[in-house]
Amino acid sequence: MSADLEFYFDFSSPYGYFASLRVDRVAEAAGRQTVWKPFLLGVVFKDTGARPLAQVPLKGPYSIHDWHRLARYQGCPWVLPDPFPIPTQAAARAFYWLESTDAELAKRFARACYHAYFGEGRSIMAPQAVADVGASLGIAPDDLLDAVAASGWKDKLKEETEAAIRRGVFGSPFFFVDGEGFWGSDRLDMVAEWLARGGW
Amino acid sequence: MSADLEFYFDFSSPYGYFASLRVDRVAEAAGRQTVWKPFLLGVVFKDTGARPLAQVPLKGPYSIHDWHRLARYQGCPWVLPDPFPIPTQAAARAFYWLESTDAELAKRFARACYHAYFGEGRSIMAPQAVADVGASLGIAPDDLLDAVAASGWKDKLKEETEAAIRRGVFGSPFFFVDGEGFWGSDRLDMVAEWLARGGW
Repeated sequence: MSADLEFYFDFSSPYGYFASLRVDRVAEAAGRQTVWKPFLLGVVFKDTGARPLAQVPLKGPYSIHDWHRLARYQGCPWVLPDPFPIPTQAAARAFYWLESTDAELAKRFARACYHAYFGEGRSIMAPQAVADVGASLGIAPDDLLDAVAASGWKDKLKEETEAAIRRGVFGSPFFFVDGEGFWGSDRLDMVAEWLARGGW
Repeated sequence: MSADLEFYFDFSSPYGYFASLRVDRVAEAAGRQTVWKPFLLGVVFKDTGARPLAQVPLKGPYSIHDWHRLARYQGCPWVLPDPFPIPTQAAARAFYWLESTDAELAKRFARACYHAYFGEGRSIMAPQAVADVGASLGIAPDDLLDAVAASGWKDKLKEETEAAIRRGVFGSPFFFVDGEGFWGSDRLDMVAEWLARGGW
């Protein structure tokens, strides 16, 4: 089996959402597997001094316009949610809990969370909201709520976020293939070409 | 004649350099003209709170790696210059002075400045360095030095930078087509598609 395409994202990142709808096709076309890696962008921003996009002068209005334009471009559901951005600990912890026993279910859950938030505008901040998303996939809500509150999954998310920073992740989405990092949903075409050509 | 593709850039911006090597081909393929618009990214950064890329934790090392990778991708000359970044008032004022009488010569001069700085690693900070670049294109050095020091061209660059901010430009490169703004050299393929399809 070929090496993986690692996909780092924050559940509150619109560009992460847009990438999530394409990343598995990009990997499959090259015979690769994806590994999804939610992390907490807010923790990364403390290191880099960055602020949430929508709050940055000039860049904020541009980004909001760009998200609408990208949604039309990709032909995918899109709502600018309110509140936005949100803390995403609950969804990310639930993801790693699910992934420990079923990586494919964890990806389906991640897609459903992204769809709820950016496709339908439903907040996924509260653990109960995340449990509702999980329930739609047959995941027992009480088990998910227990996992979200458990120190083990808190620690796992903390470790994954710290590992992301150690690897140089500073934004969402961020991809790694063959040890090469690529930042931004814009770069998925270049990632595809990297995979097809084996680098350059 | 179709409407223009406007290309905003700072002479000290690597991504502006990479875009400068492609932007005219993108426009020509769609039967468009380019209008080149140098501006001062440092002034914009005062508004947005951004810092020069290379100084940002995590993002800085990534960017430097990305520039080398992009140069290989585009097959173009590339040196990470020292000093970098630099103030680019002299080159930008000289550009607008040249453009007032010969827009094509101004573009050739801009390409030569970018090539000197990022293709050969020669600083273009000092007015004399910019005059040397101009001389290679047959531009009289004394005339260029006079223009760079003249209040009229200082004011012109100030006005263009303020106009860029009013239009929402927050980075380099930045493109406008049909009233749509696109940020980043990554987006040139999308700009090409926008031109080909007439938007979406």
